[in-house]
Amino acid sequence: MTRLNPIRLLAAAALAAPALALAAPPAAPNGIALPEGYQDWRVIAPSHREDNKTLRVILGNDVAIAAARAGKTRPWPDGSILAKLVWKDGSHAAWASATVPADFVHAEFMIKDSARFKDTGGWGFARWKGLDQVPHGSDAGFVAECFGCHQPVRDNDYVFTHPAAMP
Amino acid sequence: MTRLNPIRLLAAAALAAPALALAAPPAAPNGIALPEGYQDWRVIAPSHREDNKTLRVILGNDVAIAAARAGKTRPWPDGSILAKLVWKDGSHAAWASATVPADFVHAEFMIKDSARFKDTGGWGFARWKGLDQVPHGSDAGFVAECFGCHQPVRDNDYVFTHPAAMP
Repeated sequence: MTRLNPIRLLAAAALAAPALALAAPPAAPNGIALPEGYQDWRVIAPSHREDNKTLRVILGNDVAIAAARAGKTRPWPDGSILAKLVWKDGSHAAWASATVPADFVHAEFMIKDSARFKDTGGWGFARWKGLDQVPHGSDAGFVAECFGCHQPVRDNDYVFTHPAAMP
Repeated sequence: MTRLNPIRLLAAAALAAPALALAAPPAAPNGIALPEGYQDWRVIAPSHREDNKTLRVILGNDVAIAAARAGKTRPWPDGSILAKLVWKDGSHAAWASATVPADFVHAEFMIKDSARFKDTGGWGFARWKGLDQVPHGSDAGFVAECFGCHQPVRDNDYVFTHPAAMP
């Protein structure tokens, strides 16, 4: 095994840091940073919307998945993060009656922190648009749009998604 | 740290084995065993079918996810397993134009092993139905139905799913 040289490790870290900083998308206008590693989270449910013709997958971080599988989601526990990945409807060349993902629209997040987000039901909202992950909203007031839209499901802890049954 | 006692470990394993054996669903008629832990696999894409009114999520094991993210899926590498989880379309009480998962229909698998499954494009097919995971097919010949249906996508290594774009 090659012995690691601390000086060389530090030099490598210094070189890598600016590249990592450039790669991270900006935080949302309310200060929420893009959750890391959400692409690897587990599935809570898929969905489809006819009104805006989009396909969705709702994922959860470890805290959210544990809550979903235990049926303890009213309320979701602090630390839960839900991610909704959204694509425009596309067609499949070999299966006419199938709807499949076309362009990626955005990734939306709900972050449960009862203290930090007490004014919006305990949830922090944020959205990054497109493959280049542009934060949604011109200022922190954008959350009024999110929270307003979620009012019809306030009895379900402001969450539209019901975890899908899974054996 | 508590020192592990080999005798006690063996006793614990002996006690646990019958419970695990009872919990595991039967193998498919072609000998394929239900892949373990597929509920924790990562997302490749969602889809929706209008013909049979179902919502789907296609997941991949680690080999399949690595191939999908690298764009190396023609062919998918040996060791890849694709899981398709299927639910009947349901409606959402608070969002009329949404389609959400209702009853779980089945979990379908494609297992890539060029040698073992050379007669069916290198893929082993299997399906377990419902939440009680009943294997599909009365004998090993059921794979003719699977492989026949996948012929229109033989140029895509017999796979309908195209990995969804994801930032």
